[in-house]
Order: sequence, then C-alpha cells, then structure tokens
Amino acid sequence: MVRWEPGTPERLQRAALELYAARGFEETTAAEIAQSVGLTERTFFRHFSDKREVLFHGQQLLVQAFLDGVAAAPPAASPIEVVAAALRSATAFFPDERRPHSRTRQSVINRNPALQERELHKLASLAAALADALRARGVSDSAATLAAELGVTVFGIAFTQWIREGEERSLADIATGVFGELLALTGGSS
Amino acid sequence: MVRWEPGTPERLQRAALELYAARGFEETTAAEIAQSVGLTERTFFRHFSDKREVLFHGQQLLVQAFLDGVAAAPPAASPIEVVAAALRSATAFFPDERRPHSRTRQSVINRNPALQERELHKLASLAAALADALRARGVSDSAATLAAELGVTVFGIAFTQWIREGEERSLADIATGVFGELLALTGGSS
Repeated sequence: MVRWEPGTPERLQRAALELYAARGFEETTAAEIAQSVGLTERTFFRHFSDKREVLFHGQQLLVQAFLDGVAAAPPAASPIEVVAAALRSATAFFPDERRPHSRTRQSVINRNPALQERELHKLASLAAALADALRARGVSDSAATLAAELGVTVFGIAFTQWIREGEERSLADIATGVFGELLALTGGSS
Repeated sequence: MVRWEPGTPERLQRAALELYAARGFEETTAAEIAQSVGLTERTFFRHFSDKREVLFHGQQLLVQAFLDGVAAAPPAASPIEVVAAALRSATAFFPDERRPHSRTRQSVINRNPALQERELHKLASLAAALADALRARGVSDSAATLAAELGVTVFGIAFTQWIREGEERSLADIATGVFGELLALTGGSS
C-alpha cells in the first residue's frame, strides 16, 4: 500500500529546485529528484506531469489570487482600480519569506530558454484569465485586455525587482511604486 | 555549382505557410516544404535553422522598425511619446496587403503551443530591445521597461484585432485607437 504523505509535492518541489540550481535543469532527472528525498520516480509522476511542471506548480493559485482581488473590488470600481485590487491580492501571495525560493526559481528559469518560454506562456494565460474576469464585470473587450496586460506587466516588473539581490522592500510596496509610475508615464496621477 | 536564386527564403516561407495551414505544422517536414517549390532540404537549411524559424523570419525587421521609430522621436519627447513614435513606425511595417499572410501565420501559431511559446519569447525580446533603446535616451530603468511593455502590449492587441475576420481598418488606425484607450484607462487623455 502506498502511504500518502502530506506535503509530498512541496518536498519534491524543494528538492527539484535545489538540484536544478546546483547542477542545472537539463542535467537533473525526475528519478534523481525523487531519490534525493527518499521517494520513487513513480511518486514524482503522480504529482507532476514532467520535470518542467515542478517549477510551475502553484501557478493556478497565483491566478486565483488575482481573481480574488478582482472579486473584492467594489462594483463601481474603474477597470484600472480593479487591476490595482487584483495586484494587491496577488502581491500578498508572495510574503518576504518566499523571496529566496522565488529568487532561486527565477535563476533556474533564466538559464533555460525552454523554461523561459513556458513562463511567458503562463503569464499570458494569467493575463487572459484576468481579462475574462474584467469582461465578466462588464468592462469592454479591448479595455479588459489592455487593463489585464497592464496588471500583469506591473506585476512582472515588480516581481523582477523584488527578487533582485539586495532588494528589501515588499513585493506589495514595489508594485505600488511601479503602478504609480505607470500612471505618471501615461499622464494620469497616482 | 549552386545557383543562387533571389527570393528563395520568401518562396520557402510562402510554401511553408501554405503547408502548415493545410496539413498542420507538426505534419510538415522541411524536405516537403523545399520539394513543393522545387528545392532541396539542404537549401531549406541554408536559410532556416529549423521549420519553426520559417515563421519567425523577419522578426529582426520588426524590431528594427520599432527602433527606427524611437530614433525618429524628437529628443524632448516623453517616454510615452517615444513609444507612440515607435508604434507608428512598427505598424507601417504591416500594410494591408500583408493582412492575409499575417492571418494565416497567426492561425498556424495559435494551433501549436510550442509555436505560441516561441512567439511570446520573440515579443519579450522585442520589449527588451525597445526598453534598451529608451534607456539609451536617458529614460530611467523602470520607466523604460514599463513604457516598452506598454508599447508591445498595444501593438499585440492592435495586431490581434487587425487580423480578425472582417476587420478593415489599417493596423496604424487600430493601434492609435488602442493607444488612446490605454491613456483613457490610466486617467490620461489622448
């Protein structure tokens, strides 16, 4: 009988990240990841479809954090105010304790073009989900797409800054700053 | 002796696109593309590193069109005005005659996740090149990144609209509209 251990995906994720960072993504097999925490390759594939997916597990939670922010915005909020609410919710998803993990993960992704493409794809899906949520609130098609892209762009820039060596501000603070900069750039005010 | 025929890459591109659209990208080989226009597989690989690249040939020209627009903006132009100039230059790169080609190309890409990821990667490189050009004009690091992302986002939304069935406006006109919508959304005016 297989014993179900709580936290198995998280253990596999942590182990995978360590091995990817130490040896390189290409050089690490699913079997090695599993073995390093005393599990079998079969267990690995019960949780992840392939070794790329280990790095993108949790993506759905990030999308959900954005959507929760949209849902929490008052009905009368303008599209850009809804996006600001979505950003507040999404950035809260990355407390400072997660910064070292996020930093390592990003350095693994940045060293591998296929992983970078996968990441861009995930961000595009996030923007699409956010645009759908805005449309569901009655925002026009193109304004919804545009506002969602702005939100994901602000998030991406803030996130890149957050994981920079030496950066100590919270992701939420950085995102607020980038958002203000966006408004200043386009002639609005923050 | 190999006879050098002018326009060979363009012939291969046109042939590839027809085959990809008719049969599917995965189902078409480089040899078949070459044969369909009376060329050899070797000739194909003299022009393209693989059959994905056929679809992304010309990307450097698009980047150059953006950068030419940046270079043409007056020295005192604000970052967002520089981006508007870059968009005017880039959209001029797609006259209406190109619409059927662009439409077919996009439908091939949209049916294949690996091609979609490649396309996103190319757009990310475009944004990075545009941000570099803004920084070279003295725009601050984060404003340059943000303004470049806005430009590529507006371009992407306008382009998607331009190739929609039944759309008859020029890409330049659509982009101007989306740009105005961006300013309205963020509280500026167009």
